[in-house]
Amino acid sequence: MTYCVALKLREGLVLCSDSRTNAGVDHIASFRKLSVFDIPGDRVIFLQCAGNLASTQSVINILRHGIQHEERHILNVGSLFEVAELIGRTIRHVISRDEGQNQGIDFGCNILVSGQIKGDEPSLFHVYPQGNFIEATEDTPYFQIGESKYGKPILDRVITWETPLAKGIQCALISMDSTLRSNLSVGMPLDTISYPANLLDNPGIRRLDENDEHFLKLRTAWSDGLKNLFNELPEFF
Amino acid sequence: MTYCVALKLREGLVLCSDSRTNAGVDHIASFRKLSVFDIPGDRVIFLQCAGNLASTQSVINILRHGIQHEERHILNVGSLFEVAELIGRTIRHVISRDEGQNQGIDFGCNILVSGQIKGDEPSLFHVYPQGNFIEATEDTPYFQIGESKYGKPILDRVITWETPLAKGIQCALISMDSTLRSNLSVGMPLDTISYPANLLDNPGIRRLDENDEHFLKLRTAWSDGLKNLFNELPEFF
Repeated sequence: MTYCVALKLREGLVLCSDSRTNAGVDHIASFRKLSVFDIPGDRVIFLQCAGNLASTQSVINILRHGIQHEERHILNVGSLFEVAELIGRTIRHVISRDEGQNQGIDFGCNILVSGQIKGDEPSLFHVYPQGNFIEATEDTPYFQIGESKYGKPILDRVITWETPLAKGIQCALISMDSTLRSNLSVGMPLDTISYPANLLDNPGIRRLDENDEHFLKLRTAWSDGLKNLFNELPEFF
Repeated sequence: MTYCVALKLREGLVLCSDSRTNAGVDHIASFRKLSVFDIPGDRVIFLQCAGNLASTQSVINILRHGIQHEERHILNVGSLFEVAELIGRTIRHVISRDEGQNQGIDFGCNILVSGQIKGDEPSLFHVYPQGNFIEATEDTPYFQIGESKYGKPILDRVITWETPLAKGIQCALISMDSTLRSNLSVGMPLDTISYPANLLDNPGIRRLDENDEHFLKLRTAWSDGLKNLFNELPEFF
């Protein structure tokens, strides 16, 4: 089903997405769900997608196509807010295009839109299948889409606006780790981005596969730490 | 929505249920979801219910009524397996009774049935709305019903057949704590039972409210411990 999480922190943005897609247990595949649109020095925009893969791929393709063929497009509108509006309109278009011919299939998708345009602060939006969207704030500095419940408790416990970027990426990976252990529709490899505020450049997607030693070290430290913590809990009378 | 968890361990059974019910955010109430049927020295049977409250209350009432008015009932059938069958039949009866007249409402419910009859080992079953059921085994020594995802990772990480009863109750409460923090449809007070194998008596339901000092101590130790563990994680490069 996918799991994507995005954190908007004082220091910048942290993004993490899995790559498993499935149309039932016989149809498992791996597709990147994290896309980047950028003009170095002017803007960096990240999209993380969950839901119907055909819909999300259509949305990304239409946005890319618009850069060459539309007057207003993702690389020239004035704000991330307008980027979110544009993506919302595109989602609505794709869903109504496909729904008209078919009954009973869920064409919906959810997209996390984040990034920064020169002159503005970094922003994070959650665009719904209906095309409307909400923005992350200091009170709610993270969004999740897809199979979100397994990984939510740790985010609720530790993430605040003040969490440093380096701790944010650890938390996003732990959140992903809990989900990977409990749900088969979310799978490796993972795509992660750590974007420092005002970089205005693509910091690069870091892809973590099953053998990534740093991720394994983190997962093991967390897992062993949890078991020790559990074993040392005060007796419950 | 409810959250109930039951562990079947070598040492016995651990059960934990919340008590919040809601029919939308204006209709929040508190109803016990844990019921006990017993004949001391012969059998103890526990039911934990999730789903449509009217359905689950009907099921419990029909089972109680059957003790006085039916030839075969929950207190005289020969095994927990037959108890599960009886409950399955009762669920089917209640749902078809109510569904016939109404469209669009979900009358379904899930029931965890556990306990012990003299001469047998303790058992744990998950009875579905369709009336069929599965049994917990040493490979899968726990079941959850209701809002289960938030609380699943910790169970997956620490619970095995060999987990002592005292650790089992801590884990069930931590699993419940994660759920309480992340989902409004699950709420205090909690009902818990710790049943040592071969007791063949009702050990009593222990009810924990918001001010229970032992539960607060456990929640705080876990929460603080998690934050410390998180802060001490090796840097992720």
